Formats: sequence, C-alpha cells, structure tokens
Amino acid sequence: MNRWLLPEDIADVLPAEARKVETLRRAILDLYQSYGYELVAPPILEFLDSLLTGTGSDLNLQTFKLVDQLSGRTLGLRADMTPQVARIDAHLLNREGVTRLCYAGSVAHARKPVGSAAREELQIGAEIYGCATWEADLEAITLLLKTLGLAGLKRVYLDLSHAGIVAGILDGQAIDQAEIEILYDLLQSKDRSRLSTWTQCLSTDAATALMALTELNGPSAEVLKNAKVSLPQHAMVEQALAQLEKLVGAITNLSADLEVNIDLADLRGYQYHSGVMFAAYVDHFPQPIARGGRYDHVGRAFGRSRPATGFSLDLLALSNLALVSQRKLAILAPWIEDVTLSDAISRLRNSGEVVIQMLSNEPVETAEYILDRELVKQGNAWEVVKKPS
Amino acid sequence: MNRWLLPEDIADVLPAEARKVETLRRAILDLYQSYGYELVAPPILEFLDSLLTGTGSDLNLQTFKLVDQLSGRTLGLRADMTPQVARIDAHLLNREGVTRLCYAGSVAHARKPVGSAAREELQIGAEIYGCATWEADLEAITLLLKTLGLAGLKRVYLDLSHAGIVAGILDGQAIDQAEIEILYDLLQSKDRSRLSTWTQCLSTDAATALMALTELNGPSAEVLKNAKVSLPQHAMVEQALAQLEKLVGAITNLSADLEVNIDLADLRGYQYHSGVMFAAYVDHFPQPIARGGRYDHVGRAFGRSRPATGFSLDLLALSNLALVSQRKLAILAPWIEDVTLSDAISRLRNSGEVVIQMLSNEPVETAEYILDRELVKQGNAWEVVKKPS
Repeated sequence: MNRWLLPEDIADVLPAEARKVETLRRAILDLYQSYGYELVAPPILEFLDSLLTGTGSDLNLQTFKLVDQLSGRTLGLRADMTPQVARIDAHLLNREGVTRLCYAGSVAHARKPVGSAAREELQIGAEIYGCATWEADLEAITLLLKTLGLAGLKRVYLDLSHAGIVAGILDGQAIDQAEIEILYDLLQSKDRSRLSTWTQCLSTDAATALMALTELNGPSAEVLKNAKVSLPQHAMVEQALAQLEKLVGAITNLSADLEVNIDLADLRGYQYHSGVMFAAYVDHFPQPIARGGRYDHVGRAFGRSRPATGFSLDLLALSNLALVSQRKLAILAPWIEDVTLSDAISRLRNSGEVVIQMLSNEPVETAEYILDRELVKQGNAWEVVKKPS
Repeated sequence: MNRWLLPEDIADVLPAEARKVETLRRAILDLYQSYGYELVAPPILEFLDSLLTGTGSDLNLQTFKLVDQLSGRTLGLRADMTPQVARIDAHLLNREGVTRLCYAGSVAHARKPVGSAAREELQIGAEIYGCATWEADLEAITLLLKTLGLAGLKRVYLDLSHAGIVAGILDGQAIDQAEIEILYDLLQSKDRSRLSTWTQCLSTDAATALMALTELNGPSAEVLKNAKVSLPQHAMVEQALAQLEKLVGAITNLSADLEVNIDLADLRGYQYHSGVMFAAYVDHFPQPIARGGRYDHVGRAFGRSRPATGFSLDLLALSNLALVSQRKLAILAPWIEDVTLSDAISRLRNSGEVVIQMLSNEPVETAEYILDRELVKQGNAWEVVKKPS
C-alpha cells in the first residue's frame, strides 16, 4: 500500500487552491462581520448524542464515530456544525435578544452525501436566533446571495419550500416518524402512484392535498397562486403560504440575475427544518451549492427552544466554482549576511510585498507566487529590478 | 446526561475569543505569505499508516482511530499536521527546489498531551523543504519569533538542542529503538544514577559522553564552550556543535528580549527530528508555546527524502496569552422597508462599518461588538448618531 494514498473522496488542498479558499473565507467572514454576526468555533469532536440532537437519521449515518478513552463514550466527528451552533446559542450564550452567529470549519462524512464532491468539507455559515418572523429569513437569504456573489456567482436559482405545509396537511393524522420519512421520499420523487397508495390510510382531504403538492412546483408566483386554490384552508398552511409570499416579494428585489422557484414537495435533505427552507443552485453544479432555512426547535433538547434560521455551504465547492484568483507577484532576494539587505527586505515585506529569500543559493520553487522581480545590489543600495525571464 | 456537555478537555471557542483567534490567524498567515510560504490544507482524516509514517509511538497513542466504511481500513484523525505537509512536499508537489509551505487547521488528541490545555488544537505552522543548511533553520526560528511577536509576546526563552549529538555518541553502538526511547527519558529527567546503569553496556567513551550531556544545559555560549571540551571528537558531534554555534550567533541579533539556552539532553517530545531542535517558552505558560526543528528523513517513507525544517504551535493557546483585542464598534439600525435606509446601511457596511439591523424590532444582543451608534432618520436623511447609553 502506498503511504501517500488518501482515502476515497478525501483530498489535499494544494497551494494555489488553498490560497483561493483562504481569500474567499476571509471575504465571506468579513461580509458576515459587516452585518454584525459573531464568530464561534465549536470543537470538531463531541459526544454523539449532542451532535445528533434534533437531527434526522441521515446525519447519524453520515457521522464518523470514535471512542473517547477518557469517558468510554462514543464521540462523533461532526458532519454538520449547525446543531453545534444551536447548542452554543441555547446553552452557552443563553441570551434573550436576537443573536447572530457565524462559523467556518472542517466537517467530515462517513459516506459521501448525494451530489457532494468529497467526504470532507469546509463548512461556512451564518445563523440568526431569537427572531421568529420572516425578516430573519430574508436576512439569511440576502447573506447567502451575497456570499455567492463574493465568489463571482451572479446567476442564482433559489428554490423555496416550507415545512409548515405538510405539517398542516398532516395535522390530526396519526403517523409515525419512519412513515414520514417515506412520505418525504415519495413527495421528493413525485412518485404519484406509490404516493396514492401511501395516502390511503389518511382522510380524503389530506390525501388530496398531498397529491396536489407533487404538482406545486415552478415559478414562485404561479405556484403560490395555485397553492391557494388546491391546498386546504388550515391555519398552518395559510401561514406558510403567507410567509413564502412575503419572502418572494422581498427576494425578487435583491438581484436581477435571480430566479426564484417554489417546490412544495421538496422536503428531503432538510434534516431539522421547521419553516421556510431554501436551496441555492448555480450553473455547472448539479446539487445545491448552499442550503438553509428555519429550524425553530433544535435548541429545545439543549434546554431552550429559540426561533432559528440560517444557511451554510461548502467553501471548497464554492472556491472550485469561483473565478480563478490572480497569483501574487513576489520578489526574489539572495542570502547574504548584510544588514542593508535585511533592512531592504523588511521594508518591502512591511509594505505588503512578498519577498522570498534564497537559502545558501538553492533555487526556489513556488506555484502560488510569480517571481517577477529580484533584489540586486546597485552601488551601495539594494534595488528591486525586473527579473530576466 | 445533559446534551450540552462536552467531552473532557474539549471546548467551544465563543464570540470574543473566536474573533481574537481569527485576527491572529490572519496576521500570522499574512506574515508567512510575506516570506513566500505557500498555503496547503491537508485533510483532517487519513489512513493511519500515512499519518504515523516516520513518527514515534507517542503520536500513535495520541491519535484517534476510526473505521473507514468505504475501505474497511483504519483512519486516523490527525494529531499533528507536520507529517501530512511532508507527504505533500514529497509526493504531490515533487519539486527539486526549495519549497516553503504553511498551514493552519484543527488537530485532535485522544489523550491530552503533557502540559497542553486541551485535546483539540488549532495548529499553525511553517516548513521549509529542500535546504539542508543552517540558513533554513534560522528562517524558521525568525518566523517563530515574529509569530509570537504578533501576539504581543516579546520576552521569549528559546531552548535549543540537536539530535545529531546523541546520534554521534551512539554511532557504532548496537541499541534498539525501545532502548533509545528509555535513554531519551533518562536524559530528559537528568537521572544520572539510572543513566549510569543504562550506559554500562556501552563503550567507556560513549558512557562518559552521555553522562556529560546531563550537565550541558544553560546559557548558550557557556554550554557550547563546555561541550567542545567534554564531548568526543566525532564528526557528527562536531558538525552539530558548529551548526548550533552559527545559529546562536545569528539568533542573538534578532531580539534584545530573547534569551537563548541550550539543553543537549533535551530530546523528548521531538517525535521525528533529526538535527537542530528548538522550543520557545514565554512567561505565564509552563510548557513550550511553540516547537520545531529539522526532520530530514520524514519524506523518505513517501518516496523522497528531502531536507526539512520548520515549527508549529497551537493558535488557541497563543490567542489565550495574547493581549486582549479591542471589541469592534457597531451601528444599530431599525428594520423599516425604506430604500433610503437600505442604501445608507449598504454604504456604511461597504466603508468597513458593522451595521446590525433590528429584526421586527426585537432587541439585539452581542458580545463581540459594542453598539455605540445608531442610524436615525433626521428630516429625509438617515444619519449616524451616538447611541444614548
């Protein structure tokens, strides 16, 4: 076995790409800072129970497990930071007012998620706690679009859905969690024949409404119009449609290059969401580049249920789609014990230049920098001159 | 069991501290960039064999193991990024010339390393490949001192040692690896009585030299002088002392606040080092805040042995020692659907201000920012005014 082989779907990020990721990471965290988001950094390992609190079975299957020698308990290597950040808000910060948090860190998946490029991601995201109204969802979606904009991705397709609609339709029907997961699969795949079998045990109204959901997808205005006609007049359903309508109205103003669609049968992959849910697509990437939505109940298991909304994305995938960054120019300098040389190098570095010193005259190799100039002694002074190519 | 409990010696990094870490992280990576170091990001998981290549048994005990469902093989959660970066240089980049690499990422320890504050660290470091001479070691030590300087730590105690001295003394003696580890422990603890028993099977010259090592520690000039008298005239020993002498001469010029000591019996904790080794201490922190040195042979197992030197440190520990950073000032803005308000907010954010918008008039809570101003409508325009406290 070659010792340099990496596990399947796990990769190094090499110089030019790593700098691109770093540049994007800084720009995105600066954006979140300009909106007043506070940075947090939860640990990469936690007790498995905590990591999976309030989440679905998908996340359990995707989480690497290991044994803690100190406690004998099972730890998980995080596959998603969102529940960790919810724990921080619910338990550690324990505030009453609106709290905005952001984060960036490595997550790993035991199995590659469908459509994902790799089992390790650099997850970056932003969350708002303590605000139950649609303005918070709008701020999350706005930040998501601006995040994609920082990577040069202007043309965005935003898919909206709402967990309150199926919840409203099923209100009063006795269905266990395993059955709900099957229902989500059937709705997602728009499998009308199996869905009609599945709904036989429900009331006629509920069955009809679920069947109607499979056709409620497409341009947002049209879907909202049709939904008001074909869905039952249940308070949860009406509230969900009203929230979607407000959001669509406000989002449409955000960018001319934005296409907003609604798919009311799209509920899979939203592990712990409770209200508005959204996924952003861009050209040349078949899966959502970012996902988010409302998850008002996750904090409950940590002792305090707070309204919550937010989004996250994989910075490595985003960087891969981003426009190629310019390689930085650099100055080559010799190695000579000479105070005037050291001074010249220090001055250049402090002014923002990259100066690479040759060590005992060994040649320098670099992919990240272009050595376009060099420091040479002219008379008594060290001068920067163009490097002969 | 409370779901918000974290495993022993594992902690969240909360807002004010996380921003301090982020600020320091950027300043340090910018420093390495100004010297022409290229950024790389190896994965947090690798096959255990690769992670432990060329390292000692300590690292094995400290590495969390888990099973890869895809290959059935054992993976390790990295406890040290240095061997990963050596793998990248040896196998992926595969260059002939001098290559400078830097990195920053999470590492985890199954057991807390002696003197460490936590089982998870944010390791940051810089490495130089392809230069076998002392200039590379000097550049590494210079960068290490500048790194500590960025955290406001000026008074530094640098301890130097050299793996070539014990190797030279033991040259020609048949001793297995397990015995060497015992010897390192005895030398480290300066346990002269057990050491004299251990050395009975060696030649008289070697035994005398090892005993002499236990007294060769203290201010660098003095130790070097005594070492030349009390150590045998072996080529490896002489070369090691000559390298230390050159380095000490150059390092002493770097800072007036620097105290350079040599301890030739200090070999523990340098898992894979082969030449000059160094550890930096600062006030109020009993363990080394940073370690480094030469490890010329690590790349061999990855197919290419290259000279290598560098250092790393835990950014979380460094941030903890760093001077308290200023909390950023921020402007509070109301939530009103008003284009002139949105424009005013965008302008302020683009100019570098943090503007935190109230959502449906919910109060805002933040620890990272100080809300010292607010946006209020005066006539037809939105103006920033001092916030009444």
